[in-house]
Amino acid sequence: MKFIRYGEPGQEKPGIVEDNGTIRDISELVDDLSGSVLENLDDLAAKIKPESLPVVDGSVRIGPCVGGTGKFICIGLNYADHAAESGLEVPPEPVIFMKATSAICGPNDPIIIPKGSEKTDWEVELGVVIGKKAKYVDQDNALSHVAGYCVINDVSERAFQTERAGQWTKGKSCDNFGQIGPWLVTPDDVADPQDLSMWLEVNGEKVQDGSTKTMVYGVAHVISYLSQFFTLHPGDVISTGTPPGVGMGFKPPRYLKAGDVVELGIAGLGSQRQDVIAD
Amino acid sequence: MKFIRYGEPGQEKPGIVEDNGTIRDISELVDDLSGSVLENLDDLAAKIKPESLPVVDGSVRIGPCVGGTGKFICIGLNYADHAAESGLEVPPEPVIFMKATSAICGPNDPIIIPKGSEKTDWEVELGVVIGKKAKYVDQDNALSHVAGYCVINDVSERAFQTERAGQWTKGKSCDNFGQIGPWLVTPDDVADPQDLSMWLEVNGEKVQDGSTKTMVYGVAHVISYLSQFFTLHPGDVISTGTPPGVGMGFKPPRYLKAGDVVELGIAGLGSQRQDVIAD
Repeated sequence: MKFIRYGEPGQEKPGIVEDNGTIRDISELVDDLSGSVLENLDDLAAKIKPESLPVVDGSVRIGPCVGGTGKFICIGLNYADHAAESGLEVPPEPVIFMKATSAICGPNDPIIIPKGSEKTDWEVELGVVIGKKAKYVDQDNALSHVAGYCVINDVSERAFQTERAGQWTKGKSCDNFGQIGPWLVTPDDVADPQDLSMWLEVNGEKVQDGSTKTMVYGVAHVISYLSQFFTLHPGDVISTGTPPGVGMGFKPPRYLKAGDVVELGIAGLGSQRQDVIAD
Repeated sequence: MKFIRYGEPGQEKPGIVEDNGTIRDISELVDDLSGSVLENLDDLAAKIKPESLPVVDGSVRIGPCVGGTGKFICIGLNYADHAAESGLEVPPEPVIFMKATSAICGPNDPIIIPKGSEKTDWEVELGVVIGKKAKYVDQDNALSHVAGYCVINDVSERAFQTERAGQWTKGKSCDNFGQIGPWLVTPDDVADPQDLSMWLEVNGEKVQDGSTKTMVYGVAHVISYLSQFFTLHPGDVISTGTPPGVGMGFKPPRYLKAGDVVELGIAGLGSQRQDVIAD
């Protein structure tokens, strides 16, 4: 099933999306797609009779597809080809960094170029939303902790990330640097998370065209690995890395400017569209 | 005024602490010390008549002194002497990294040594709690965004931090790696945040004995700096770095083991006491 959150920022309501694109409100069933609701999306899905639910106006703003995110964790250099274009080796174990949860926004909210930025870049990524608490889990059980999958744009300012005194956080955490959604797709509707094509276009030109097939450390590996360091909680989001084709990898590099339009998507998980604006 | 949160984890209630140590409940006035409540602690303090409020049993668990923290931001190598003991230069601008908010716990909750850890270390730090939203603020106005100050133990696993494939997050975000409190002390009760003595003892032996006087980038600088990258929200916590004396800096290095007791404090902000236990 495809879950969605819609409405104004901070006041999103939960809904579902039917195969024909119709959005139906489910706020009579649950308050939000967050916390303990994510532990039992299967039960929730079983209860839902779409035809009995109110239809939502299709022009509504779409919010991030999960609420109450405590951790926004990213895996760096997790596609061999992307590591190569960044001039870096594939790491011997997953590289972890955090994006600020205040960077999270809806899938079609603008990319805001921060003041002083000259190197704002794009990264289409497979997002994994945690449904059940995970600590010291093994790879065999890891996927049972997943509430669903989604599209993420891990927007990145390369100068802030790498030229401003150590650690990537500065270049990853700016406001509106984390578009999440449109849909939270439950695992039963994702045949194989390691076989999803993914793409990103800038002004209509395809710049990223990859597949989660070439991910170095897959979803089960990453969840198990992270859970050795800390507890993953319902609503935590893991962004699993990007395939080749980011602006930094072009020769010469290409970065976003106000007026650009970015579109991206992953097979079965929907697509995003962002206007690029200056702050 | 000294604010406090008490009760079981996740169910803390707000209170104040009188000069004689008596805790009084203020949950009739506010639900929690989080969000918009932090924007107006002065108004809240003005309304409080301690003698009319219920006394809380002094044996209650003390929680982290702030709720609803969205970002737990740390400044690295922010004391010149500590950078030297780590064998690193003072950075040309503040080094930022994030701790997971799931690492946050009460001031006297145990330090939990994660499975596989051999290098769990301590760091006494001055914590700054944001009260008012801050974006692109200058240093002159930065301190007006502070709700209060507190003690933080930025517990760190040095092997996870520096020997496990890039970025410090892994060694900084383990469960119970962020003791915050006991008190949230409002700015009017902190004469000068850049002149506070601070200390940390392991099993009664003083190992850190410093002062915020030797901080490289002071609180106003750090708030202004961070706000150039992203919006700081009420409840965000900034841990401003540690003075010399961490375990990693000893020759040979000293790390925590189950059974150790860590005590730490900052002048005017109270003290913490943690049992070290194995996970």
